[in-house]
Amino acid sequence: MSNMTGLPFDDIRDLVARMPGPDDDAGAAVRARDARLTKPAGSLGRLEGLVEWLAAWQSRSAPRVDRPVVCIYAANHGIAARGVSAFPQSVTQQMVDNFAAGGAAINQICLAYDFGLKVLDLALEHPTPDIVEADAFDEAGCAATIAFGMESIAGGMDLLVTGEMGIANTTVAAALYHALYGGTADEWVGRGTGVDDEGLKRKSDAVAAAVARIEGTRDPLEILRRLGGREIAAMVGALIAARFERVPVVVDGFVATAAAAILHAMDPTAIDHVLIGHVSAENAHREVVRRLGKDPLLSLGMRLGEGTGAALAASLVRTAALTHAGMATFEQAGVDDKA
Amino acid sequence: MSNMTGLPFDDIRDLVARMPGPDDDAGAAVRARDARLTKPAGSLGRLEGLVEWLAAWQSRSAPRVDRPVVCIYAANHGIAARGVSAFPQSVTQQMVDNFAAGGAAINQICLAYDFGLKVLDLALEHPTPDIVEADAFDEAGCAATIAFGMESIAGGMDLLVTGEMGIANTTVAAALYHALYGGTADEWVGRGTGVDDEGLKRKSDAVAAAVARIEGTRDPLEILRRLGGREIAAMVGALIAARFERVPVVVDGFVATAAAAILHAMDPTAIDHVLIGHVSAENAHREVVRRLGKDPLLSLGMRLGEGTGAALAASLVRTAALTHAGMATFEQAGVDDKA
Repeated sequence: MSNMTGLPFDDIRDLVARMPGPDDDAGAAVRARDARLTKPAGSLGRLEGLVEWLAAWQSRSAPRVDRPVVCIYAANHGIAARGVSAFPQSVTQQMVDNFAAGGAAINQICLAYDFGLKVLDLALEHPTPDIVEADAFDEAGCAATIAFGMESIAGGMDLLVTGEMGIANTTVAAALYHALYGGTADEWVGRGTGVDDEGLKRKSDAVAAAVARIEGTRDPLEILRRLGGREIAAMVGALIAARFERVPVVVDGFVATAAAAILHAMDPTAIDHVLIGHVSAENAHREVVRRLGKDPLLSLGMRLGEGTGAALAASLVRTAALTHAGMATFEQAGVDDKA
Repeated sequence: MSNMTGLPFDDIRDLVARMPGPDDDAGAAVRARDARLTKPAGSLGRLEGLVEWLAAWQSRSAPRVDRPVVCIYAANHGIAARGVSAFPQSVTQQMVDNFAAGGAAINQICLAYDFGLKVLDLALEHPTPDIVEADAFDEAGCAATIAFGMESIAGGMDLLVTGEMGIANTTVAAALYHALYGGTADEWVGRGTGVDDEGLKRKSDAVAAAVARIEGTRDPLEILRRLGGREIAAMVGALIAARFERVPVVVDGFVATAAAAILHAMDPTAIDHVLIGHVSAENAHREVVRRLGKDPLLSLGMRLGEGTGAALAASLVRTAALTHAGMATFEQAGVDDKA
């Protein structure tokens, strides 16, 4: 994965085409062991499927989550100047400082579960251009950001949790969904951090105008290049690299899912190693995950970002793996199997 | 709570009538602090409400979960002889031994989250009578079991998770729901640990016959006395005592919820300190929680019992409390509040 900076989109398309598939033997080994554990077959519900998923994508017949890491990708967006957010753009840097100081929600969740936390600052002092007026990136810049995201997962993690921070990035994500899936801008925008009715109207208008500007663009990487943002491009890279490195991924809410949506549009199987951790309270996230064919693990009405919902889900993934690994079999425990 | 053994139903009714209410000041303190934390208002969704609930029922303006304990109530049921379960009755004791040896699913979940675990053996060698033919208890016996459940929460826990083990106890729970809520037996029975079609028919017939036998019985404690079982009666006691001891409770699935349903039928506010941890895959649990006015935290297709689903939910409750306690305020972090 090293030395990716400067790769053009064709190289990224080639990587996506060459993504490794699941280790079906590892998945089958988990199913076989699961059938012997001291519980009725199927009674752990989704936990059972999570362990099998983890095995298939870690390529380990005894999957484990020893080094889970939450990566928060932070970026700024020129479109914030259009008054689409309830908070000023200065908050992105302030929250990055808050992550560093340990004061944010995700810090507490990582402490509670002993998860690693990395914050990736994507040139906060250089917001991408206002996408109503100009493309977010040129191809080299977009590809370099994807490559940065690929590098971000280095270090030996065995479960990646992707989250983000960036004032106005629900506007950018809504634009991406609108460009990918059509419909009207209104269907894809929501209140984000809590914008008022007038702000919501500005947001919807901005999304409509940005997508109208790139009308006819169908290639997913081109849609990403033209609409942005840096955190979403970096997460696309992280998801690609994680697949090659055999690191399953738990994706957070409305914005983090946009990276999965870009990859899914390139190849629906490209996100088979990705779990959507939770369904966000942000309008339209449920519809996005439906289009991705995903069933989010949690539905807690959260809409904070930072990877918070996905981190909660990741704790359940780890617990599922520990439960599978630690349980006795019927034989070991001397428990009678079905009558 | 000591020396409760032998109290008659009137004393239990009196206890329920005298249950303390929520500490609204503690709840308000949580809401006030929450509004100053570095996140958009409401963005932690249900986690925010959980902290407020915890505060109100712990009577602490800074609620915490330092000593969570999973209590598993285990009992046997004469109705098992009717072939209503996929597993033989011997499995109840074998699984209690498995809990002691650390081999069950709940052991791994408690290890993963550092939760305490207590297993309460409710006279396993003395199954309650087959409730198609006879009442499960006399009043003294039922009240003594409720009192045993009251005592079971001693020791200083600050969050109780109730779970159960008992071959054929989904049959008993279905009978309780049918007696409490009417309808037909078919509406309340499910496959439990995985009974086949013939077993399901036997189960439905048994539930119908047991409930027909006590036709006209409307008093919730009398319904409990006549239909059983010991683990459900003990959990009724645990829920009552937890209210007095200021211990919020996370209740598990189809069988554990039956204890909450008995209390709710006595007084709908009697389970305000109770969270239903998850909605079980067992048929009819969703309808029961709807009737209780509850919104389960998780929906993972689980149907194992042992407190497994509730323990996962309890870990989210603890994380919610830690997040609330540890986050910086806008002022502390120097983050700009809404524009």
